[in-house]
Amino acid sequence: MKLFGGIEAGGTKCVCMVGNHPDHLLQEERFPTTTPGETIHKMIEFFLPYVKSRELAGIGIASFGPLDLNLNSPTYGYITTTPKAGWSHVDLYGEIQQSLNVPVAFDTDVNAAAFGEQYWIHEDRCLDPFVYVTVGTGIGVGVIINGAPLHGLVHGEAGHFALPHDWQGDPFPGVCPYHGDCLEGLASGFAMSKRWGESPERLAESHPAWDLEAGYLALALVNLIYAYSPQRIILGGGVSQHPGLLQLVHCKVHQILNGYVQSPMLNRINEYILPPTLGNRSGGLGAIAIAIRQLSEAHGQATR
Amino acid sequence: MKLFGGIEAGGTKCVCMVGNHPDHLLQEERFPTTTPGETIHKMIEFFLPYVKSRELAGIGIASFGPLDLNLNSPTYGYITTTPKAGWSHVDLYGEIQQSLNVPVAFDTDVNAAAFGEQYWIHEDRCLDPFVYVTVGTGIGVGVIINGAPLHGLVHGEAGHFALPHDWQGDPFPGVCPYHGDCLEGLASGFAMSKRWGESPERLAESHPAWDLEAGYLALALVNLIYAYSPQRIILGGGVSQHPGLLQLVHCKVHQILNGYVQSPMLNRINEYILPPTLGNRSGGLGAIAIAIRQLSEAHGQATR
Repeated sequence: MKLFGGIEAGGTKCVCMVGNHPDHLLQEERFPTTTPGETIHKMIEFFLPYVKSRELAGIGIASFGPLDLNLNSPTYGYITTTPKAGWSHVDLYGEIQQSLNVPVAFDTDVNAAAFGEQYWIHEDRCLDPFVYVTVGTGIGVGVIINGAPLHGLVHGEAGHFALPHDWQGDPFPGVCPYHGDCLEGLASGFAMSKRWGESPERLAESHPAWDLEAGYLALALVNLIYAYSPQRIILGGGVSQHPGLLQLVHCKVHQILNGYVQSPMLNRINEYILPPTLGNRSGGLGAIAIAIRQLSEAHGQATR
Repeated sequence: MKLFGGIEAGGTKCVCMVGNHPDHLLQEERFPTTTPGETIHKMIEFFLPYVKSRELAGIGIASFGPLDLNLNSPTYGYITTTPKAGWSHVDLYGEIQQSLNVPVAFDTDVNAAAFGEQYWIHEDRCLDPFVYVTVGTGIGVGVIINGAPLHGLVHGEAGHFALPHDWQGDPFPGVCPYHGDCLEGLASGFAMSKRWGESPERLAESHPAWDLEAGYLALALVNLIYAYSPQRIILGGGVSQHPGLLQLVHCKVHQILNGYVQSPMLNRINEYILPPTLGNRSGGLGAIAIAIRQLSEAHGQATR
């Protein structure tokens, strides 16, 4: 079987991998995201031997955003208006594609992670819609509906949901430069650090920060349940891995739903809202999965 | 061309129509929604002559919910846990299908209305995702993604989004029996009546109710934009038709987005968030559209 490349381009680090299955990865490398020139050069260097040996059938890129995913746009494949210094209007897709000259699939890090978890772990694909939420430095939401990552005017941005904010209980104004106290503004790892003066991994399990955090995440998950009626929600990212947080979130999601949505699945909420099975490889393995999908669709079209 | 039937089953009234195009309706009837027995009997009586004359190729039902849309469920086609007296666990699909013995398509009133507006008005189908919001006695949201109405665990319930609620500016606790101050609890026609002691149509254009209403609807629409990244949003229902409200909503959506989503479409927001072109026939004509779609898909499958 041919090999595929996966790139997860994150705001702080990048992951490159080559393989064709979670259990069959030939090489994997992680490096910090610095300038676009230096970072993209490292990506290209990583894949070049596989291109030269003609083993690589395609590459998937799972990138931080916002991204231009409109195939008819002259700036398709660009990172657009990111606050990350130097990375606005970078043609990530184009530089990789032109340097390596293989088919490249391109999507948001969270859409690719959602697709990866669905593709590699829930292979029957009947878990659709399928939602992946990451809570790390920022908050992102990826969605697969009818077998495809959700694209529209741009792509989903549910990390910026407007949510109830009890200013008396939590006078913190939020950190989102666009919205102040949206979901990401209130509940991202960066927001936690700013609110408590301590990074989340240093906050004890008994710290009131976690009850507040679980409350915001539960409100967000309920809104995601109302929006997509997903068959499964994966809760990933560094902050979500804090011991005990997921159980608190489960409990609060039940409280907020208050019996409104009737489904047997919601009575087994610990099987409904889950940590990622692929762990911190969801993005990279998702990137490989979207590359495989794109190639098989291209072949499907060619033979039609 | 064959004829199709459309049923819009609403909480207060029902619409039955026969035809195959918005400009080609042979008969249309509106009657109040009373008991299930009486109401469903009226629907059957309406269509019976067209079934007997073998002119009717199928019927679409656009119903108030919640509904069981899971094709593998023994209660597929039932209205499930509605607060509407007498209508819980009514087999609406089954009674129509068995009495008339024609193919029946079944979906929520809002999914059908969304599909109808997309199908009849934006026939190129490239406006996808496509969102229909109704603000009447209650609030509902229908969504078309990748050409199909959104179904999942159940169906979308974005009318119950959790939203910011400024208790100081608006101490009204909300009317939702499940969530209190969710979107429907704060901004439905029923909520307006309860808050102001006057039905919405009797509140003057200059009444502060409308600024508050526009604020809640704008927050909801921004969350819908973040969730689905829709290519178009239709804002229907009786409350939405209040003079000046849509313009207020446009203005507030822009304020809340605050430039976060970059798309030329958002600079023409009066072309992006629109009233329904089919008016109060979106549901019935949408029901006809889902019936046509189901029949053409069945034929597609048969010839594959």
